[in-house]
Amino acid sequence: MDVPTLPIRRVGIDTWRESVVFLHRECPVVRAAGFQALAKVQVQANGNTLIAVLNVVDDAAICEPRELGLSEEAFRRLGVAPGHPARIEQAEPPASIAALHRKIAGERLERGDLHAIVQDIAAARYSKIELAAFVVATNQFELDRDEVFHLTEAMIAAGQRIDWQREVGAGPVVDKHCIGGIPGNRTSMLVVPIVAAHGMLCPKTSSRAITSPAGTADTMEVLAEVELPLERLKEITRATHGCLAWGGTADLSPADDILISVERPLAIDSPGQMVASILSKKVAAGSTHLVLDIPVGPTAKVRSMPEAQRLKRLFEYVAGRLGLELDAVITDGRQPVGRGIGPVLEARDVMRVLANHPEAPQDLRQKALRLAGRMIEFDPDVRGGDGYRIARDILESGRALAKMNAIIDAQGRRTQPFTLGTLSFDVTAPAYGTVIGVDNLRLARIARLSGAPQVRGAGVDLHVKLGERVRPGQLLYRVLAQFDADLEFARRMAADGSGFSLGAADQVPREYTAAPGEVL
Amino acid sequence: MDVPTLPIRRVGIDTWRESVVFLHRECPVVRAAGFQALAKVQVQANGNTLIAVLNVVDDAAICEPRELGLSEEAFRRLGVAPGHPARIEQAEPPASIAALHRKIAGERLERGDLHAIVQDIAAARYSKIELAAFVVATNQFELDRDEVFHLTEAMIAAGQRIDWQREVGAGPVVDKHCIGGIPGNRTSMLVVPIVAAHGMLCPKTSSRAITSPAGTADTMEVLAEVELPLERLKEITRATHGCLAWGGTADLSPADDILISVERPLAIDSPGQMVASILSKKVAAGSTHLVLDIPVGPTAKVRSMPEAQRLKRLFEYVAGRLGLELDAVITDGRQPVGRGIGPVLEARDVMRVLANHPEAPQDLRQKALRLAGRMIEFDPDVRGGDGYRIARDILESGRALAKMNAIIDAQGRRTQPFTLGTLSFDVTAPAYGTVIGVDNLRLARIARLSGAPQVRGAGVDLHVKLGERVRPGQLLYRVLAQFDADLEFARRMAADGSGFSLGAADQVPREYTAAPGEVL
Repeated sequence: MDVPTLPIRRVGIDTWRESVVFLHRECPVVRAAGFQALAKVQVQANGNTLIAVLNVVDDAAICEPRELGLSEEAFRRLGVAPGHPARIEQAEPPASIAALHRKIAGERLERGDLHAIVQDIAAARYSKIELAAFVVATNQFELDRDEVFHLTEAMIAAGQRIDWQREVGAGPVVDKHCIGGIPGNRTSMLVVPIVAAHGMLCPKTSSRAITSPAGTADTMEVLAEVELPLERLKEITRATHGCLAWGGTADLSPADDILISVERPLAIDSPGQMVASILSKKVAAGSTHLVLDIPVGPTAKVRSMPEAQRLKRLFEYVAGRLGLELDAVITDGRQPVGRGIGPVLEARDVMRVLANHPEAPQDLRQKALRLAGRMIEFDPDVRGGDGYRIARDILESGRALAKMNAIIDAQGRRTQPFTLGTLSFDVTAPAYGTVIGVDNLRLARIARLSGAPQVRGAGVDLHVKLGERVRPGQLLYRVLAQFDADLEFARRMAADGSGFSLGAADQVPREYTAAPGEVL
Repeated sequence: MDVPTLPIRRVGIDTWRESVVFLHRECPVVRAAGFQALAKVQVQANGNTLIAVLNVVDDAAICEPRELGLSEEAFRRLGVAPGHPARIEQAEPPASIAALHRKIAGERLERGDLHAIVQDIAAARYSKIELAAFVVATNQFELDRDEVFHLTEAMIAAGQRIDWQREVGAGPVVDKHCIGGIPGNRTSMLVVPIVAAHGMLCPKTSSRAITSPAGTADTMEVLAEVELPLERLKEITRATHGCLAWGGTADLSPADDILISVERPLAIDSPGQMVASILSKKVAAGSTHLVLDIPVGPTAKVRSMPEAQRLKRLFEYVAGRLGLELDAVITDGRQPVGRGIGPVLEARDVMRVLANHPEAPQDLRQKALRLAGRMIEFDPDVRGGDGYRIARDILESGRALAKMNAIIDAQGRRTQPFTLGTLSFDVTAPAYGTVIGVDNLRLARIARLSGAPQVRGAGVDLHVKLGERVRPGQLLYRVLAQFDADLEFARRMAADGSGFSLGAADQVPREYTAAPGEVL
């Protein structure tokens, strides 16, 4: 006797990266209750297999007793048409769960173990709770540097890999990346045109925001199309040497996206996981040379110089074994970079820097020039120490702006520009004092609640930065929104704590620079 | 301006212990997309608060744009009527998440930390992935014995607690519990009537199966009602001294049920978690004296004698600090107990033992008498060593059967008896040999796939046990089912591996008894 089948129904529920299967409680073919506690079922149709969580349905309007409902994610993954017969069975635990249990028990994993785990994760065979178990078991001090290398290597192997040299036929493929956590830090949109104008290949794929108020892809999308097929990206890079596109269309390190869906809500971002996440994405995207930005500050991801140095060494070790040239730079992460937090506001700051506008935020400009300088020094024809000057010349001459316009036009200039939110409220200084703290996390959350990044024109516009003196009633920042409810959520969060601390001038925390004479 | 509200809609989806909120993608009041990556939302209505996962809906048949859909679990938890206005907000992480992060980082938790975590878990403020993080972070060697005590104490404090002395006015309240893992091990249904017939108070609340083929509540339900309100349980216990009811109606250690929903699919059941789970449930159920059954065998939960001894000492330490009298007994866990695996089959074995039936399984009878003897020795008037003889006299005289019938009548005798499954297949010996292994896990899975416990009459009926000699074609066990698909799932699992190993007589693993002269 064969296992019976049920026709597939697409159920219009978006379960956010978790495949869910819906089975009616009175299904005459398969008893839903018997499966439910097991947490996972396996669906097979047309030679494809899907691992999913089971939800039992009592409402035939959602799923009939003789149907097998699939959530949007499950439907997409199984890839067969509605009505197609499918069979459902109890899912066997993925084979790599044995290795996961060894890691939970405190053992060191071998290369083969990590490859098996990552393959199962990339194939969506892990449930959310198994992913959480992996993330916790590999947290903090749990992975040694060779395990981090093998994890990174496995994550690269589990997806596609772009070979720019073959595609575009040029020398080094340079990139820059920040470990994150600093709002407004949109240096990529400045370094890409500068470095491309210098003649180096800089095809940057970046992410959309997950829990932050804007990702580079969200901000670039204010100006141009960012969802481009790989073939278009290659054409654009051939033509302009640079691009600023969303990386989600290529299947680059897919296990990373799945792990992030658990790491973010758990607020776990341990060194090993961060290194594997970033380097797997970069190598899969075809980068050969990478400048890495590690901001340090009281509300940054990295909060002390020794911690930053440890992280830097781990990045260097793994990059070295992967054959990726890495220049890891420790930067000032005491406060947001630039003025705007949110896609339209950040795009405004970027374009002002490119246009050498008098109101361009100087901190964003300086940081971008320094990072671009480091990238330019990957050019074997550039002398060590000359990068910054070359980058500044490119910016000041207008060549960076021209290159940015070329990239925007190549990707597809947005004809209907996004506008700033029309609702707003102001947060002002309660007393005289010097700004001695600007909380990155708080301002990011306020910007997020105001609607960013989904509402492109929402966010926070800073009017004062660290070290400035303020008087009572002086505007610290303005919050912009498009919807009443968003404005209200943001207002309550800001009322709870503005993110600004005032004090005496000598209380301003000093920048965690590496050593006197160091450029950054 | 106030945060806007949406009317509640009950969505007929059973999400298995996880509250899910459904919001239409085009909801004009709250933008669903902005919430989604945050994983958790907070819903407030009528002074009640619910923490839930958000799913975005594209189908107005499931949830209209101006409605807030709640899954069955969410609807039950929020406890307001459909149409009632509710407001939805981003959920703040539960306050105890900071302590969870300290545990993940390897720190020792204090009493207050564990109480805060357990309160948040019991109030359903943890998502599945946060629960998984807690389970992994407190796994294996991660909890010291004082942490286990504080965890247990917190789990008791987070729910109701029955005070039998006050309710029924008797002396010790005795109970027995097995750590699980051995199919067919239905000794509770024998020891309760024996001990109650001796005159001791033995009001046993037990669980339904979660991932096993039968829990005591499932098997007892073959004979009598088990879903009884607390008041009825008290009446029955006053009248008969014993009961065998499902514990789910009372709110006993609710955090335990929630943690189990993650531990089971992860197959994590570490010593500290097991001790906290079992002892919190027993103390909350009002037990003062407990006999604990720790089976040891190659496919049992505990696989070596030193491991069993460590676990026993941890149980003794925590029970001691809780003021619970504990007698932990290490037993033979090399194979299933009795013949039947599945509710009707196990109820048959139990009733045969009570009726002194010639075909009653002797291993089940012996084990039950020994455990009952230990319980009877909690009676201060019984001399050490006399318990077994007293228990045997009660059983052989028919007083245990009479007591069981009294309990069944008091709880409500089932008038429509469940019958055995009408579909079956046989598994036979492939060769001559001695049975040297009977895999508990394999047989439990085959019984589960055949439909047990949801299909009461499904399961596995063993015809041969460890150490017996068999000839080719001899029946090892019969699998019973009620539905074609179930039979087919079970058949494929059994074809993949029957769970029986044959070999030479001297290869039978010896029983892990403690020491010569030890009763068990």
